[in-house]
Amino acid sequence: MANALSLDSVVLSQDAKELVILDQTLLPNEVKFLRLSKAEDIWEAIYSLRVRGAPAIGVAAAYGVYLLSAQEDTGDMEQFCERFKAHKSYLDTARPTAVNLSWALNRMEKVLEAEKGSLSVPQMKQRLLSEAHAIREEDIAISRSIGRLGFELLKPGDGILTHCNAGSLATAKYGTALAPVYIALEEGWNDLRVYCDETRPLLQGARLSAFEMQTAGVDTTLLCDNMASLAMRRGKIDIIFVGCDRVAANGDFANKIGTSGVAILAKHYGIPFYVCAPTSTIDMSIPHGDDIVIEERKPEEVTEMWYAKRMAPEGVKVFNPAFDVTDHDLVTGIITEKGIAYPPFDVSFKKLGIQ
Amino acid sequence: MANALSLDSVVLSQDAKELVILDQTLLPNEVKFLRLSKAEDIWEAIYSLRVRGAPAIGVAAAYGVYLLSAQEDTGDMEQFCERFKAHKSYLDTARPTAVNLSWALNRMEKVLEAEKGSLSVPQMKQRLLSEAHAIREEDIAISRSIGRLGFELLKPGDGILTHCNAGSLATAKYGTALAPVYIALEEGWNDLRVYCDETRPLLQGARLSAFEMQTAGVDTTLLCDNMASLAMRRGKIDIIFVGCDRVAANGDFANKIGTSGVAILAKHYGIPFYVCAPTSTIDMSIPHGDDIVIEERKPEEVTEMWYAKRMAPEGVKVFNPAFDVTDHDLVTGIITEKGIAYPPFDVSFKKLGIQ
Repeated sequence: MANALSLDSVVLSQDAKELVILDQTLLPNEVKFLRLSKAEDIWEAIYSLRVRGAPAIGVAAAYGVYLLSAQEDTGDMEQFCERFKAHKSYLDTARPTAVNLSWALNRMEKVLEAEKGSLSVPQMKQRLLSEAHAIREEDIAISRSIGRLGFELLKPGDGILTHCNAGSLATAKYGTALAPVYIALEEGWNDLRVYCDETRPLLQGARLSAFEMQTAGVDTTLLCDNMASLAMRRGKIDIIFVGCDRVAANGDFANKIGTSGVAILAKHYGIPFYVCAPTSTIDMSIPHGDDIVIEERKPEEVTEMWYAKRMAPEGVKVFNPAFDVTDHDLVTGIITEKGIAYPPFDVSFKKLGIQ
Repeated sequence: MANALSLDSVVLSQDAKELVILDQTLLPNEVKFLRLSKAEDIWEAIYSLRVRGAPAIGVAAAYGVYLLSAQEDTGDMEQFCERFKAHKSYLDTARPTAVNLSWALNRMEKVLEAEKGSLSVPQMKQRLLSEAHAIREEDIAISRSIGRLGFELLKPGDGILTHCNAGSLATAKYGTALAPVYIALEEGWNDLRVYCDETRPLLQGARLSAFEMQTAGVDTTLLCDNMASLAMRRGKIDIIFVGCDRVAANGDFANKIGTSGVAILAKHYGIPFYVCAPTSTIDMSIPHGDDIVIEERKPEEVTEMWYAKRMAPEGVKVFNPAFDVTDHDLVTGIITEKGIAYPPFDVSFKKLGIQ
């Protein structure tokens, strides 16, 4: 079986004409790469979670807006800029909660705005390409840095609980919440135990985190989300690492649905709970978690299992939010690539230079 | 669609020769009754959750041990008693956690022991039949009483969260945790809202509680287990009713896996959390919840969705406990058919005459 660290979740093809995405909806049954170049296909890949995880979405969006703009055959910069902005607006609608989507698109647009006076259209296309590459490479460096800081919190033999997938598949490499485990492997540790919440309804923990960790050779145990309480009660869990999609200025954060429940359990059982957050996910313009928009997804994700019969009666109402908000007072620390922020988070964010 | 209250989860056939069970593993897609008379089939129906819910298991076991004993053609009482005990021991191994299984079997055996000196074998068979019928009828009365007490705790318009299925399907009628809703319907209330945790891995909440509540005409919303925290945070939940499989003398109780997590969330959000418990589930011989045996079930329940491809990598370890234990200090009250027990439970159990 392929080791997940050797699989690239999102890259540009060698000829820079296609976005190459590992279709994560097919894992763990099939390792299939999609080669995308049309706007609708790129949008659909983000919307349908074929590429998912806030940092990986950012990389996909950056390459995507580059690719679609590079296909424009105008030589007129003003027209090129208009087309760029249309592509950007379109891709920006694929997912509402992950800040990295708009963050990466805005970063690409800033390059366009700053340099459109001094570059020709072909030069601008090259410039956008190198910016998209830079976003990917910086993401790898950020994940490594978060992994290193998280690793310092571990003791040999620790049981680590994670929710959803904030692993290598969710970023360009290493991941955020699983990065400390990859660093531990590099350091020769082989006695960590990783517990993966399956993470209903889309089972990213079962399909992706368990796949990643098992193929990396880690002692991996899968559990249903509602089993985490008993696992904690029995002393199996020493520390919790989760990713995040958006952090508010006070440290409240949005992450995959169920994360706030894990945080409440962790507090009840006295287990440290760490959020792994690239500083790009910290949104100082949002004062409080309740201001974060939570995506509500279609009922069929809950009522119809994949390839299966209905698992609930026809017509039943469904509550299917994709994310939830965890209060900052449930968080032990927020691990960014610049350092670990401890409460009070408004103060510690400033100390880390986040504005 | 049939109303669940009109469906009998477990009865004896008119000719008293078959156990008739509504196969709950096929719901909500198919309403199919199984007619069972062989020991292995009855055992399998209990083991595989075709009949499930502690009270319904008790009724099935009582009818089951009657049926198997009635098939014995001996006229010798000593031999009949031996055969009865063999059938009882066999059925008793089908599920380890639900106290009603052994409770009902022991009650049947007590009748045998008390009256074997004064009855012929044919008379004893009739006596066992009437005892099994009595267990079913008492269960209906108990559920109604619990429903009435729980109903008194409700306000019009309340949002009720429940976990797993402790409804009509789990008992002979009405259920325990859903009984207050059925009583409210009888009282003409039509504005209650019921939220059903889907309850992984076997989805009793999605398949059974949502089916029951929707067919009864209740405003029903299904949610994944990990969405309960957000539903509480948003103020959708006013009160929580859950069933239980076994209550210890101090009020700790075992119920479907995930119940302890719901209780911890309820405490965090300040929402009343009630356990609906026939006194037959209160086991005063067990001082503490940690002494309750928790059944661990096969990994495939988690890794392979029904009728589906694998949902987790081959060979991954799985933590798949069927139940968990909830500490008594998370419980607002325990609703029995004799009254509501409030903390401290050792005192209130005594006041209710439970020994």
